[in-house]
Order: sequence, then C-alpha cells, then structure tokens
Amino acid sequence: MTTIKIFDTTLRDGEQSPGVNLNNLEKLEIAKQLERLGVDVMEAGFPASSQGDFDAVKKIADTISSSTVAALARANKHDIDRAWDAIKGAEKPRIHVFIATSPIHMQDKLKKTPEEVIDIAVNMVSYAKSKCDDIEFSAEDASRSELPFLADIIEKVITAGATVINLPDTVGYTTPKEYGAMFKYMKAHVKNIDQVDLSTHCHDDLGMALINSIAGVENGATQVEGTINGIGERAGNVALEEMAVTFEIRKDFYPFETNLILNEIKRTSDIISKLTGMVVPGNKSVVGRNAFAHESGIHQDGVLKNAQTYEIITPELVGVTSNSLVLGKHSGRHAFKDKIKQLGFSLDDDKTAVAFDQFKQLTDRKKEVTDDDLFVILMDVQTDIKARLQYQLKNFKVEYNSSTSPTATVSLITPGLNTIEGQGTGNGSVEALYNTIEELIEEEIQLTDFTLSSVGKGKDALAEVHVSMTVDSQPVSGRATAQDVLEASLNAFINAINRVFIIQVAEKE
Amino acid sequence: MTTIKIFDTTLRDGEQSPGVNLNNLEKLEIAKQLERLGVDVMEAGFPASSQGDFDAVKKIADTISSSTVAALARANKHDIDRAWDAIKGAEKPRIHVFIATSPIHMQDKLKKTPEEVIDIAVNMVSYAKSKCDDIEFSAEDASRSELPFLADIIEKVITAGATVINLPDTVGYTTPKEYGAMFKYMKAHVKNIDQVDLSTHCHDDLGMALINSIAGVENGATQVEGTINGIGERAGNVALEEMAVTFEIRKDFYPFETNLILNEIKRTSDIISKLTGMVVPGNKSVVGRNAFAHESGIHQDGVLKNAQTYEIITPELVGVTSNSLVLGKHSGRHAFKDKIKQLGFSLDDDKTAVAFDQFKQLTDRKKEVTDDDLFVILMDVQTDIKARLQYQLKNFKVEYNSSTSPTATVSLITPGLNTIEGQGTGNGSVEALYNTIEELIEEEIQLTDFTLSSVGKGKDALAEVHVSMTVDSQPVSGRATAQDVLEASLNAFINAINRVFIIQVAEKE
Repeated sequence: MTTIKIFDTTLRDGEQSPGVNLNNLEKLEIAKQLERLGVDVMEAGFPASSQGDFDAVKKIADTISSSTVAALARANKHDIDRAWDAIKGAEKPRIHVFIATSPIHMQDKLKKTPEEVIDIAVNMVSYAKSKCDDIEFSAEDASRSELPFLADIIEKVITAGATVINLPDTVGYTTPKEYGAMFKYMKAHVKNIDQVDLSTHCHDDLGMALINSIAGVENGATQVEGTINGIGERAGNVALEEMAVTFEIRKDFYPFETNLILNEIKRTSDIISKLTGMVVPGNKSVVGRNAFAHESGIHQDGVLKNAQTYEIITPELVGVTSNSLVLGKHSGRHAFKDKIKQLGFSLDDDKTAVAFDQFKQLTDRKKEVTDDDLFVILMDVQTDIKARLQYQLKNFKVEYNSSTSPTATVSLITPGLNTIEGQGTGNGSVEALYNTIEELIEEEIQLTDFTLSSVGKGKDALAEVHVSMTVDSQPVSGRATAQDVLEASLNAFINAINRVFIIQVAEKE
Repeated sequence: MTTIKIFDTTLRDGEQSPGVNLNNLEKLEIAKQLERLGVDVMEAGFPASSQGDFDAVKKIADTISSSTVAALARANKHDIDRAWDAIKGAEKPRIHVFIATSPIHMQDKLKKTPEEVIDIAVNMVSYAKSKCDDIEFSAEDASRSELPFLADIIEKVITAGATVINLPDTVGYTTPKEYGAMFKYMKAHVKNIDQVDLSTHCHDDLGMALINSIAGVENGATQVEGTINGIGERAGNVALEEMAVTFEIRKDFYPFETNLILNEIKRTSDIISKLTGMVVPGNKSVVGRNAFAHESGIHQDGVLKNAQTYEIITPELVGVTSNSLVLGKHSGRHAFKDKIKQLGFSLDDDKTAVAFDQFKQLTDRKKEVTDDDLFVILMDVQTDIKARLQYQLKNFKVEYNSSTSPTATVSLITPGLNTIEGQGTGNGSVEALYNTIEELIEEEIQLTDFTLSSVGKGKDALAEVHVSMTVDSQPVSGRATAQDVLEASLNAFINAINRVFIIQVAEKE
C-alpha cells in the first residue's frame, strides 16, 4: 500500500465558491476539524488577496500543529512575502507558488513568453525557498500545457528548491487517460522528479475529478488536492471523502491508502456545509443523507436478508450515527460538558456557559433535543455568531393576515447602544421584516440569496437560514438558527450586516 | 462517431430516491420534457409495484410518441402482464425484465440456484416476447456476478428474444477497468451478442458512475442508463447530462455522441429538481448554478481577457439563459401566451386563464416578474397543484411577537365544502400553523422534512417550500410557492395532505 498525502484546499479553492464568505472564526473551526480528520496539508488561504485572508491564514498557522499549513502566492515577491508572513508561525509551513504554463494562459492572461515564465518560476521558487523549506510549485492549467515545456519548467523549479510539484486540471477539461499520461510523462522525462511529491488537483466540470485524481495517483502522484464535499470554483474540486472511501472500500483493487480518519468524514462534511451554506444534496456519494437509505421494496427486502446485497459502505465507516436522543430538561451542566466533548467541541468556560443557556432555553420549548440541535448551538457559539454583534435584535413582531399585507415591527440596539424601532410592510412576512430593518439602518443592501432548511425532523425542528447579500456593494453572507422561521430569517439578515462591520474593523486594524 | 442511446430512468430509479413522491401529472410533465430533451428510451415506472405507478406508466405510454417507453418487471408473469398492460398503448413499447445474477443476490435474496435463475430468465423473456417485440433484460448486480455465468445467461436470453442486455453496477461498487472488462468479456464470449444493444447502468456510491458508464461504452455498450441530475437510489445514478456534455466537449477524445438536445438540459434539470424537491447543489457539474460562475479575481481577470482561459462549457450550450426580465403589469393575454410558448409549455385554455390570473396577481405585488417566476407559476398550474384540492385554504392569520408564543388562525374548506376554523400556538410560526391544521383534520401526521428556498434573487423573491411527511403512515410530499414564507409553508402542508386523498381515490378506482 502506498500512502497518498491529502492536501485539503477547502479554505482556499473551496472558499472561492460563489456566495461563500467565511469569517475568521469559522475558518479556524474548519481548520481544527480538518486537522482532526487527519489531512496532511491544509491550504489556509491566499494571504496577498486581502487583509482578512491574511489574518485568517495567520490565525490557522498559529493554531494547527499536526497538519502542514500552506499559503497560496502568485509568482511574485509581494505575494510570497505576504504568504510567508502569514504562515511563518506554523509548525509545518508551506509556501505554494503558482504560475500558468498553458499556451492560452501564458499568451492571453500573463502576456509572457514561455522563457519568461520559466525565469519567473525559477526565481520565485528560489526566493520562496530562502524563507521556507517546504515549497510547492503549481503549473496552472497543466493539463492544457505542452508536455516538453512542462517537463522543462518542472525540472528547473525542482532544482530551484521545490519540494512538491502540482499539475492541476484547472478548467476540469481532462480525461483519466490524458491526465494519467501527463504524470507518466513527467516521471519518465524529468530527471530529478523522484526528489519531490507529485500532486494532482482536479476540477469536476465534466464530472471526472475523482477518476482523474486516481489516474494521477496510478501514474506516480503521491499527493491529491481537493476539498470536502467537493466545493470550489465552478463545479468544484474532487471530493476528498470520495477518494478516501473509494481507496478503503476497493483496497482489493487500488493499492493506495490515505491518512484520513474516515469516521470524522460526516462531521467534517456537516461543519463545512453549515458554515459555507453550500448544501450537500441527498444523493451525494458518501456523505449525502440518502447514501445509506434504501427506498424500494426490493432493496429493503434484500438489505434485511443480507445488508451486502445493496450496501457496500456502512454508515459507521464515515461516522454517521443514528440521531440519538440526548440530554433533556433536567440535564445538568456536568452532563452537558460531557456531551460537548463527545461531540468533539472544545469550548472555553464563557462559551460553555452561553451554550448551556441556549440549550436550557431550547429544552423549555422542544421535547427532544437531538445531537443535531446541539451541534448547531455549539457551532454558533464557537464561531461567535452572536458574541460580536454590532446591531443587536431587541425584539420584533409580525402580523400576517391573508387578506392584507403583512406588517413587521423591529427594535434594534445600535452599535452606539441606542434603541431604534421601526415598522414596515411587504408582500411577504420576511420581506416586511427586511424592509423594516433596511429602513432602520443606513447601508445599501441587495439580497442575492436566501435559503432555509430544517435541522432534523418534525415540526419543532430548528430552522436554519443562510442569506447572501451585498452591503454597500460588498458581498457578505449571514446565517442564523432559531425555532421560528421569521426569527431565523431576521437574525441571519442582521448577522450578515454585522459581518460587514467586522470586516471593516479588521481592515482598519 | 458512434451514437450512444440514452435510456432515462428518472421516473423509475430516480423516483425511488427517498422522499420523492411524484403524482401522475408531475410524472407526465417530466416525461414530456424528457421527450423534448430527446431521450431514446424513458423508463416510466414499475407498474406491478402499485396501482398509482401503473396509472402513471399508462398515461405516459399513451402520451409519448418519439421516445420508447419502458416498464420494469421482475421475472414473473404477473409483473410482465402488468407492465405490458400499462405500456401496450405506446408507439414504441419496451418491457424491461430483470433478475439478479450475482452469487450473493441469488443465494441470499432469491434463494435460487444459478440453473434456476437461468430457467426463470429464459422463460420470462420468452413470455414477455410473446407480448412485445422490444425486450430488455437486466442481470441485476452484474458487476458482482461471475463472468462465465453471466455470459451463459446472456446468450440464452438473447436466444429467447431479448433485444437489449443491461449489465448494471447495482451497488455502485465497480471501477472503470473492471466494468469495461466485463463488457469486453461479453463481446468476446457471447456468440449472439451483436444482435442486441448492450447497456450500462451505473450507481454513484463511490463517485464513479460517469466514468464507469464511459468505460462500458468504450468496450461495446451502445446504451447508457441514468437519470437527470443523477438522482436515484442511495447516491443516485449516472447524471445523463454530464455524459452528454462530456461527449460534446471532448469529441476530440471520445468518438461518441448522443441524441440529446443539449440546450434542453437546464430546463429539464430545473423541472426535475422542482418537482422532486431534490435540490441541485451549486457545485454540480454542468447544471449547478456556480458551474459557469467565476469567483476569484484571478479567474475573472482571465475570463475577461479570453473566456477559454477558465471556461470550457458555455452556459448557452446547456440552455442557461440570463434571467431576463419579462412582461410587466401592463402585459396582456396575448403577450402572456407568447411567453408560455417561448418557455416551452403547452397549456389548454382553462389552465392558461388560471396562469394568467396568477401572473396578474403577482405583477400587483412584485416589481420584476422574471422567467423563473413564470416558470414556477406555469409548472404549478400544469401539474394541477391547486386544481385538485380536497382541503382548500380559505384564509389564515399569524401573530408573532418575540416575547410570547406565535399564534395561528386557519380556516379551511373541507372536501364536503364546510368551513372549519381553528387556532393554535407553537414554538415557531410554522409550527403554530402546522399544529393548528393538525387539530383541524383527522389524519395522523408526522413531518419528516421541510425545505424552503427562494426562487430568484431579492427580498421579493418567491418562496418555494417542499415538505415530506407521513399521513396515516403513508409517505407523501407536498410543495407550494408563494410570496410569503408562511403562506408557502401552509400550502405545501395542505398540498401534501391532499395528495394522500388523490392517491387513495386512485387506488379505489
């Protein structure tokens, strides 16, 4: 068995998914879970792209110890300096330098000759190497590059100090045979290739990210880049959980394994789905909620007779547990703390107190408090969804009557601790709420997306709302969970607005 | 170029997705769209499984003319009789007989010897052939069957009259090399194999449904079975739109094509997603809404300089149009009828009148009525979501105040045309509504899932609610669209209850 290193780029390529805007605490929480999942490398961000990204990468680098923390940089000194400044505190830092190598990208985007591109790549890898031992070089759009040129530039950047060579299928265009052949070619034609890890990076535009990655591995790649849930630019990256589970289930066929802790997969998938607002569809391989469900009578009959008739992956393998009932009205703080640990959270005393309060409030109103419910509470508290509020909701009222327009009344506490109140109407009750709050605050708001889903089953399930909007032309998203759809809708809206303030403050600092 | 036949099983395997319960009008609407998309064969259902399924298959068989309509049957006379009765009115009927051929399925599920399985298969194919010229035979769990046995049974069922042989990867366990090798083996060892179409049927449990299907095609398969959006049992089937687009985009590499009208893909995907309630994730290949979005600054810059730097599929290819503004307050019936045609709907006069009324109501309340909005109205009218109501909503009221419990008042008109009214509370406003209505009607209801999404952008977007529940232990789903989340929630609930009545009436008839 060859162990394939897992390079997770959920926080960089995944975070580039349209509509995804994670704050730094959310990124940190994802990073901690990725470490628990056992990723060998996590790409924490692109520090030169914004101050917010820099701060997030630094915070992650300073926190994570067992995984390598990588930062992306274009092939220029400024980007490399910013990347290094962000990650130099990490136990295992890596600078990830990239430049495009395909004719179309060099001509039309970079407007450079191939010789110029080689010079830049070699110089910038050397420059990065003067700061950091572990340097990954990516030949962007490798799958549309000319093989001899690619071999040439790779050999030279390895000589310049690169420790990992990544050959991305940037546009998701390749097929397994072509992608595998590229790796085979490099193994045969680059004389110092055995000094480095070769890496795949595949996009799913044609639905082949997984098999292309496997083809790379079968032809010499020892690192696979991807994301959890397959999020990322356009159709996304390869879903790492699919690769790891395929290698596990088909170890009779594929002589590869990864260091991922497979029963952390479901939890990781849930956290990333909730925090990014990127829904995992029911029919998603490995982590979709139907993946282990058997609907037709024929299948159910078969599974009862012998599960293996229709089930090749057990739910337990990837950490899916039946939604156990936990803790009730009479549970005390001690039992609550035990449960927090069991669910894998590590909260400080203040946050534990806040979470316990919220749990108690919920037990007053909901008969069955499930692990799912607790997970939402703990995640909200951990990522400080309420603690850093600028605008705070004091109270609100909605009157809906099918024969007239809905009316909303909202009281807010402003950042200056004044109470402001307004009333408004709309064609729907959420619109009435949003109209009212827009009148109350000064920012220019455009709502671009609104989704609401239930957490768990039954009519007393929690409502989880995710909104995307632009506030003064800046894209931002917000989320909130409550037992009432109107309350969750209103809080998600306020949460999004508050995030703009947090970003603005961070950029001034 | 070899033309590969597309066998769509959205209405059979896709409809087996947990939580999906389509009524007959919805199935018919999907069937009509599949015909427009140009599928060679559509599997309309499994007539022996229930009277409802039988009726749906019959209605589809009687309506569709250019695609073959197939009906599934286990290898027994009763199933085959039911299948034939349902499809005999079709222009191009096909009976699809299956029996399992893997050791585990034969021993543990069927409890038959291999010889018995061959006898049954041959006899039942002959029996089906006595009714229908076009007979497909599926060797269930073929990918875990022994190759010589599989070759033996195939040869015999071809002699018995099968015209299509399907070799499914029922549990989604295979890899492209193994699956391709199976087809190659059959081409080499079954002497009458060239008399039939060989078919793939792949599930996505390990994320390899697409590449496995392609491997089958590369080794002699001339038919591919799958679904739109890849819905289906567990992780679903191969997504047919991904296969068709891959063959189009990579025709330089793959010498295959399909008869699908590619620019009908998006519309087909939308219809199926809306009617099944199976959400298409943003990062889904080909049809996800991010598939053509470019988020990072680097990518945006590249696309502006030359779209092909990062874009290999144009939105237009698959029928994605920018969300054009259409029709306003002052648009008349004539313009509205033109628009209906343009959107691909064919409504009778009564339904046109209902749709026009709803459109007018919407223009009173919503500044910009988009194609998306109209699509929802037309689809609701076309699938009779309101016309067949048993319980009808008269009016309702909700009062929400953050300091007390929400209160709901609901008036319903019963199937006997009486008005009943009730009041109730809950921990959330939707719960209050649902509690109230549950008190008003007699059935035993368990809500199992609730999702709400916005149609289009902005705070005056329509709210689309999809609920799944059991009513007197019978699983059913409902959906509704309205400009208010509470109204949509209530109507979806009532819609689900009414569907139970429709099913009960259909079963009595």
